[in-house]
Amino acid sequence: VTANAAGRLMAAEIAEQPQVWHRLLTEAVDPIGEAAARMADRAPRFVLLAGRGTSDHAALYAKYLIEITHALPAGLVSPSTTTVYGARPDLRDVLYIAVSQSGGSPDLVQSMEVARQQGALTLAVTNNPGSALACAAEIHVDVLAGQERSVAATKSYTAELLALYLLLDRARGGDGRHASSLPEFGTQVLAFDELVRGVAQRYRFAQRLVTTGRGYSYATAREAALKLMETCYLSAQPFSGADLLHGPLAAVDPLVPVIVVVPDGAGGRAMMPVLERLAERNADVFGVGSAAALELLAGGITLPTGVPEELSPLLEILPLQQLALHLAIARGEDPDTPRGLQKVTETL
Amino acid sequence: VTANAAGRLMAAEIAEQPQVWHRLLTEAVDPIGEAAARMADRAPRFVLLAGRGTSDHAALYAKYLIEITHALPAGLVSPSTTTVYGARPDLRDVLYIAVSQSGGSPDLVQSMEVARQQGALTLAVTNNPGSALACAAEIHVDVLAGQERSVAATKSYTAELLALYLLLDRARGGDGRHASSLPEFGTQVLAFDELVRGVAQRYRFAQRLVTTGRGYSYATAREAALKLMETCYLSAQPFSGADLLHGPLAAVDPLVPVIVVVPDGAGGRAMMPVLERLAERNADVFGVGSAAALELLAGGITLPTGVPEELSPLLEILPLQQLALHLAIARGEDPDTPRGLQKVTETL
Repeated sequence: VTANAAGRLMAAEIAEQPQVWHRLLTEAVDPIGEAAARMADRAPRFVLLAGRGTSDHAALYAKYLIEITHALPAGLVSPSTTTVYGARPDLRDVLYIAVSQSGGSPDLVQSMEVARQQGALTLAVTNNPGSALACAAEIHVDVLAGQERSVAATKSYTAELLALYLLLDRARGGDGRHASSLPEFGTQVLAFDELVRGVAQRYRFAQRLVTTGRGYSYATAREAALKLMETCYLSAQPFSGADLLHGPLAAVDPLVPVIVVVPDGAGGRAMMPVLERLAERNADVFGVGSAAALELLAGGITLPTGVPEELSPLLEILPLQQLALHLAIARGEDPDTPRGLQKVTETL
Repeated sequence: VTANAAGRLMAAEIAEQPQVWHRLLTEAVDPIGEAAARMADRAPRFVLLAGRGTSDHAALYAKYLIEITHALPAGLVSPSTTTVYGARPDLRDVLYIAVSQSGGSPDLVQSMEVARQQGALTLAVTNNPGSALACAAEIHVDVLAGQERSVAATKSYTAELLALYLLLDRARGGDGRHASSLPEFGTQVLAFDELVRGVAQRYRFAQRLVTTGRGYSYATAREAALKLMETCYLSAQPFSGADLLHGPLAAVDPLVPVIVVVPDGAGGRAMMPVLERLAERNADVFGVGSAAALELLAGGITLPTGVPEELSPLLEILPLQQLALHLAIARGEDPDTPRGLQKVTETL
């Protein structure tokens, strides 16, 4: 690979993820512990989460964690209610979490400022401690991903997932120990790179693609679809497994490839009826998940065993980032500089 | 049109909408008033909304109404956290609203039962007062749409929107007067049917399509995309205007038609930067919205003036329902019986 080869930044940042996770697991213990203590102190009763693009998917992951492991109701914020319509909601007892790689999106900053004025405890999760978003929040968690140069976010996504996991785990008294083997597991999964390169050839001429998962893995389905759209310019649609059966399944036929995320655990098991319906429609299905689930499919990437389901999304996305990279290159595109996009998107 | 013509049920139910709205505006005043009084009595501090498919889009509309006009934080429920992962969140001070045409989806019923056990005030909005969901809720609002026979939901969608609007308007002391002219406006908009039939011909061979809107109209973009997917089997992707600029814009080129929803009001105005970016990419853009916004576009359907923005979604969706109907017929499909779908989808 030469210095100017297409996708070299994205490839390097994908490969860097186990190191980023190791850094978070070692260097962020104290700051995340302090942030978690301040969160727990305030005993929030509702949680709101805000993010755009890739970071919205990290927020979605955290929503599941909060609902399931913290037994708190949570919602994803529509920043426009504040920035476009001027809403000033009563946010006492609310924890407001904004997630952003750059910390620079003006609508997120403004929404957070309003949330703080309205009584919420505000927490920013970013890759830039000097950013406007980090400064606007009472608490900041740095995801320590290092500078991200590829326009398609990869390492900052999984760093956001892990920082949110560690924060929420600590806030309920955990010590993050279940995450300690993640860097090793990540290295194992990244070793499927050659296999994924071959898989990319099969999608060379696909114009539409569907991704699907349930529970924690729904975030993976959404993020994989966004990566494929950003870098390969195909129409990739993510659905929760349940939503897919409510209408969009009609648009799936053997010419629309489907990528399913089926990890060990309750969310993966809940995908079984979806796999059955897809088989009835003779859909072309590729899986990322447990060995047991993949036995039902023609092809896929098997994830290591022994990973708690709530941490699987960090591993599930790796081969799908690689797929976006290799498919873009196979189509003659440079995924480091997608047409029509900048690294920091400013929306109001 | 013969009795067995393709799409006759869907066409009849689209046309029926102004009558359905008139029925709701006259016959539902007392029951909706009682429901609103019980809601207001409990003074909820947080609102959760649940729905699947089309009803999820009605829930999304209500989320914007609640955040903007009630100044309350709100979130869309992921039923799987309860039904798949067994979460039992603390829902005191929470208003839990489930929306469903049939009232029969088992996961919504179970989520609502759990929400009630966990302390939420539960409210069901359905088209079937005898349904399991209606019975599981403390409060039921009947949308009075009459039996819906087409698999693609149309009249039940706008009936849900109007019932939710009236309920939330009453709960903050309104008398629903802004909605009184809706049946008349609806009849005016439905008269564009011939024009829409012509527009459908332009999309005859489209395989991908993007819909976009902001604020209240984001619900319209989502529902339009679902209708097109269900009946025409194309890949229709909805994005909020802001999210479109964060990545997916890369996948828009002159071969991917875009439908924009740009009503009078703050949400429509906030779409102007999106229209500019689409023009830069030479996208093929069709609009539904205000005369002023449509002047910037090559084609579109102009909505009547004088409709408050929060009621526009009822009118915006009408030509897009007609588009789904006519495009399906132009492609040789029967939108009344989409392949692979049933009227009531059972997910757990």
